[in-house]
Amino acid sequence: MISVGIVGGTGYTGAELLRLLAAHPEARVQAVTSRSETGKALAALYPHLSGLGELEFVAPDPSGLKQCDCVFLAAPNGTAMHMVPELIEAGIRVIDLAADFRIKDAATWEHWYKQAHACPELLQEAVYGLPEVHREDIRSARLVANPGCYPTAIILAVLPLLEQGLAGQAPLIADAKSGVSGAGRGANVPTLFSEAGENFKAYNVAAHRHWPEITQELQGISEAPVNLTFTPHLVPMVRGIFATVYVQGVESSVDLDSIYRQRFTQEPFVEVLQGDALPETKHVRGSNSCRISVQRPNGGDMVVVLSVIDNLVKGAAGQAVQNMNLMFGLDETSGLQAAGLFP
Amino acid sequence: MISVGIVGGTGYTGAELLRLLAAHPEARVQAVTSRSETGKALAALYPHLSGLGELEFVAPDPSGLKQCDCVFLAAPNGTAMHMVPELIEAGIRVIDLAADFRIKDAATWEHWYKQAHACPELLQEAVYGLPEVHREDIRSARLVANPGCYPTAIILAVLPLLEQGLAGQAPLIADAKSGVSGAGRGANVPTLFSEAGENFKAYNVAAHRHWPEITQELQGISEAPVNLTFTPHLVPMVRGIFATVYVQGVESSVDLDSIYRQRFTQEPFVEVLQGDALPETKHVRGSNSCRISVQRPNGGDMVVVLSVIDNLVKGAAGQAVQNMNLMFGLDETSGLQAAGLFP
Amino acid sequence: MISVGIVGGTGYTGAELLRLLAAHPEARVQAVTSRSETGKALAALYPHLSGLGELEFVAPDPSGLKQCDCVFLAAPNGTAMHMVPELIEAGIRVIDLAADFRIKDAATWEHWYKQAHACPELLQEAVYGLPEVHREDIRSARLVANPGCYPTAIILAVLPLLEQGLAGQAPLIADAKSGVSGAGRGANVPTLFSEAGENFKAYNVAAHRHWPEITQELQGISEAPVNLTFTPHLVPMVRGIFATVYVQGVESSVDLDSIYRQRFTQEPFVEVLQGDALPETKHVRGSNSCRISVQRPNGGDMVVVLSVIDNLVKGAAGQAVQNMNLMFGLDETSGLQAAGLFP
Amino acid sequence: MISVGIVGGTGYTGAELLRLLAAHPEARVQAVTSRSETGKALAALYPHLSGLGELEFVAPDPSGLKQCDCVFLAAPNGTAMHMVPELIEAGIRVIDLAADFRIKDAATWEHWYKQAHACPELLQEAVYGLPEVHREDIRSARLVANPGCYPTAIILAVLPLLEQGLAGQAPLIADAKSGVSGAGRGANVPTLFSEAGENFKAYNVAAHRHWPEITQELQGISEAPVNLTFTPHLVPMVRGIFATVYVQGVESSVDLDSIYRQRFTQEPFVEVLQGDALPETKHVRGSNSCRISVQRPNGGDMVVVLSVIDNLVKGAAGQAVQNMNLMFGLDETSGLQAAGLFP
Repeated sequence: MISVGIVGGTGYTGAELLRLLAAHPEARVQAVTSRSETGKALAALYPHLSGLGELEFVAPDPSGLKQCDCVFLAAPNGTAMHMVPELIEAGIRVIDLAADFRIKDAATWEHWYKQAHACPELLQEAVYGLPEVHREDIRSARLVANPGCYPTAIILAVLPLLEQGLAGQAPLIADAKSGVSGAGRGANVPTLFSEAGENFKAYNVAAHRHWPEITQELQGISEAPVNLTFTPHLVPMVRGIFATVYVQGVESSVDLDSIYRQRFTQEPFVEVLQGDALPETKHVRGSNSCRISVQRPNGGDMVVVLSVIDNLVKGAAGQAVQNMNLMFGLDETSGLQAAGLFP
Repeated sequence: MISVGIVGGTGYTGAELLRLLAAHPEARVQAVTSRSETGKALAALYPHLSGLGELEFVAPDPSGLKQCDCVFLAAPNGTAMHMVPELIEAGIRVIDLAADFRIKDAATWEHWYKQAHACPELLQEAVYGLPEVHREDIRSARLVANPGCYPTAIILAVLPLLEQGLAGQAPLIADAKSGVSGAGRGANVPTLFSEAGENFKAYNVAAHRHWPEITQELQGISEAPVNLTFTPHLVPMVRGIFATVYVQGVESSVDLDSIYRQRFTQEPFVEVLQGDALPETKHVRGSNSCRISVQRPNGGDMVVVLSVIDNLVKGAAGQAVQNMNLMFGLDETSGLQAAGLFP
Repeated sequence: MISVGIVGGTGYTGAELLRLLAAHPEARVQAVTSRSETGKALAALYPHLSGLGELEFVAPDPSGLKQCDCVFLAAPNGTAMHMVPELIEAGIRVIDLAADFRIKDAATWEHWYKQAHACPELLQEAVYGLPEVHREDIRSARLVANPGCYPTAIILAVLPLLEQGLAGQAPLIADAKSGVSGAGRGANVPTLFSEAGENFKAYNVAAHRHWPEITQELQGISEAPVNLTFTPHLVPMVRGIFATVYVQGVESSVDLDSIYRQRFTQEPFVEVLQGDALPETKHVRGSNSCRISVQRPNGGDMVVVLSVIDNLVKGAAGQAVQNMNLMFGLDETSGLQAAGLFP
Repeated sequence: MISVGIVGGTGYTGAELLRLLAAHPEARVQAVTSRSETGKALAALYPHLSGLGELEFVAPDPSGLKQCDCVFLAAPNGTAMHMVPELIEAGIRVIDLAADFRIKDAATWEHWYKQAHACPELLQEAVYGLPEVHREDIRSARLVANPGCYPTAIILAVLPLLEQGLAGQAPLIADAKSGVSGAGRGANVPTLFSEAGENFKAYNVAAHRHWPEITQELQGISEAPVNLTFTPHLVPMVRGIFATVYVQGVESSVDLDSIYRQRFTQEPFVEVLQGDALPETKHVRGSNSCRISVQRPNGGDMVVVLSVIDNLVKGAAGQAVQNMNLMFGLDETSGLQAAGLFP
């Protein structure tokens, strides 16, 4: 039984970790920290977790976490980097769900996150926790940087094309749409029901922090420069990411269906749809699945890849549990097999 | 042309006043104040009002308002009472959309609003601005207390029964449901899209500030004590109030249909539905209408009255404009005739 | 391992049964029938169930079902009664999720469901499958009539008061609100997104088929006539039932909190909230829980009980699985322990 | 006063025409036809239009329409072409809101709409009713083909770039998102609240009927072939179109802001946003506005144009009224000046 600690359990990502770990046969949550809710019962903040029993939020004290085998950090960006060195020195395996260790280049990170990095020496060691790309490195990692939700949906969408060198040097366009829970549980006017409901909009079009993260990974996969345009949008739904990715110049002789099917056939959480079946976010709500469809409108050389995930599961907490499973030698799907919730 | 000032133009109620007054043939908004947005163009905060031209928010300075014929106060509770004396002394007609002047008894007001009243001497003079009940007093009022959204829907629902003395002394139950915009534009966790969306809940069940307001008016109408239970709920929609009111002991010989139809036949904004037609909030979205159905399930002596309004229109800004029309001798429906928005 | 058959697997209730049974450690779905989708893969209709493997819909042939230990009937009203006699004669335990066996009196059933009953002789034998009331009878039942969603929420809300004889003879009012999935998967204009979204309405106010069902059970519990007014409403959300029940004449000396807590303390799926905590439908979305709060506004003798369930789980498929667990001597919570999905 | 007839008044587009014309100072609806609702009062089907008075649906009899000055056809595709010849012969000005006269080439139309065209000889005469492009021709047209909702949003988004020859020959990508009302009022499973709510999906990716329409117009504007990829998506909201259009190869020296501002400065219904302001569908809900923002992420040569309209107003009924205004020499904005509904 793996003993688990969660830092920052009051956000949606922390709550989702708790939901998934409660059903995990080989992990037990030992400590959940919260600066703001110390001493409060978990079920008082999140009644849907009342079945978890008497768990209470504790102060984010590293010493209390040191009895854990594995610590998930679900705190705001810039928090994990101050805790990770002490934790991994104590022999704890760490999975950071924030962005602190996703960017390999410290200067790039500091440019996008507007602060100095507290432990740049760990950036190279940290493994980008997308199992479909870095599975072997994750198994032995001390520190896993859990990917962002948009990057997960977009990278998986084009992975086979980039690995095969089929995307060329033409602009790559990722038009992505997210449910509102992606903005977290902070109280802000734009994510109020009266503002976000019955509304659709784009945001951060000029620059979004997931752009350098996606670009880094796509370049790593294709071993070439990638010219990415990434446009995030906000959808009036709670959960879900939908990515529509446009890849130009893929010759019509390329058998996309076969390439995608072959690439993902062994992947437990990626499903390639057949024919003209198209993915919907609701089909993966609450589950760790990514569903992908590859289309070639009008038979031309423009390929449109559509991919869906639940931003809080495969885009955050579920992927983190998948990474834990790999790090501790468990069945990769352990605790992640429940069907999603539909309708 | 009536020259209008609006205090507190940044909330939803203020914005709705601006929308309605923009289409009013005999009123022109001269000044809109905002403490937080002084100097900002109205259309920058509310792009749907970009057709209003170059209007900017100004500081809430009473002297600037004194050139107005009519001032609407759409500020948080407890603000209007500090401005009203000076305004009415200057000969300006005032309509307060907050709760400062709705309760006649100062002690009751202070109990429910947890503060001392700044001008209790005006409470008796203030006219409760429900035209269907106080039309004549409104015409000549210097100060109108615009009713709350729940009170408007509930009082109109039972008005004919109480006027006719048919409700008796049995408990009166008002089970009411509101869209999220009723909570205003403040940023709070419970009204986030991710919390209020796909959710239904009751709130303030033990005590809600509209209870004394409704009770005062119902007692005034029936000239007898009223034993009201009022339960507000939050609906995952932006606009709309739905009130389901239960009145016991109405003998089956009473011709409800005729009583309701007769009572409201001259009312421009109240429509009594026929037979088993039932009201829906969406049928009045954006309009100043109140739609009412009276039902007697299983033919018993329990009467169920269902009433709908748009909380921001007949429940706030629209009713305020209706009051202005009355105060200035205009056609009562002036500027309020546009159909609602469906679907 | 219990071998399970499902008749009518294409509706939301059937799909929810499949979701829950997929996670059940001691049951395996052997056959799912559908008249309209015979031969189609389950996952083609319900991609969220793609993890269930190769299951296909088969024709609703009783002979194929006879190899099952337990058959769930999730077909439209009036279907089950034609299949049940043959099934229970073959020794199969049957749980009907429609209304065919809920009403004990055949004439009453025929009045409300507008058809002759095909096997009235089974009405007395059938056990009303609300475990909190009929647990022992369910254990040995050949035929369980799974309760309706509204009845489940409303009966649980007032059960302790009625058992204690505290509700008296005064009118009982159940103002209930349901998510749109309660209307099923049939294509009708009123449940279109453009009609039901951003809308709130009541329906079937004059008469709803759940009224005789609730009345029958409440009268059974209280061993006295019950004067129930029941008003159903439609909420713009997919899942959830919220019941606001008004009980008059409960003397202020009655310790409601203690009565409710004591009554439900052993119930695995009913949680009584403390103090002024109020239930929300989203707190039980996807789970088999019922959460209840008892309030006494202004300290009077009117008691307001608020209760929430997920209409597709505790209000349908989850309760059916709970009944199966009881009928087969399993842990009552088996397969039903997963936390709900929030946000 | 223009006398107006509406054919097909029961759909959302017809209802929206009625809403807008009710507020039009120089038009009066004389006849509204409906095959299915003949004899029914308009307000019974659409209670939000109860202010319109006693109007009833009449049978779609051409002779009754011949007393009108202007007939709007809001019927399903393939209906208008059977009525138009007789109407224009009778001297009536006709605006078809369906697709029958949008495509100039009969063979193309027949390929996409899977039927023979009943009056191909009118295709050349019909004027594509996008005033920002064809204003002068519309003024004198006997027959106007009102544009589709997606085409309106997308063509306006790129109009200045194409007119200036700045889009080049590179692929043009229009990633478009629509509210559910775009699918009409027909009862279908995919547009049920329980299916479309809390969901996001693409549809008709391989081929959508608006593709040839957009392509035809863009090629007309640019006087060159256009290589368009168009992907429509469904958003869980009722109203609104959001188009994200990607135009490659626009040299960084091009002053986009000035080109867009100059092009649209005289347009009453197109607003170009400044700087990093981005459009939201809710800002135009219920109004005839199109709001456009032009962005150049990371300062590259990829231009992203974001454009929003209300699909039922500028995307259908509002644009039709705008066309009527032009055809009858009225102020182009007559009846279309009301602000939208927010929130």
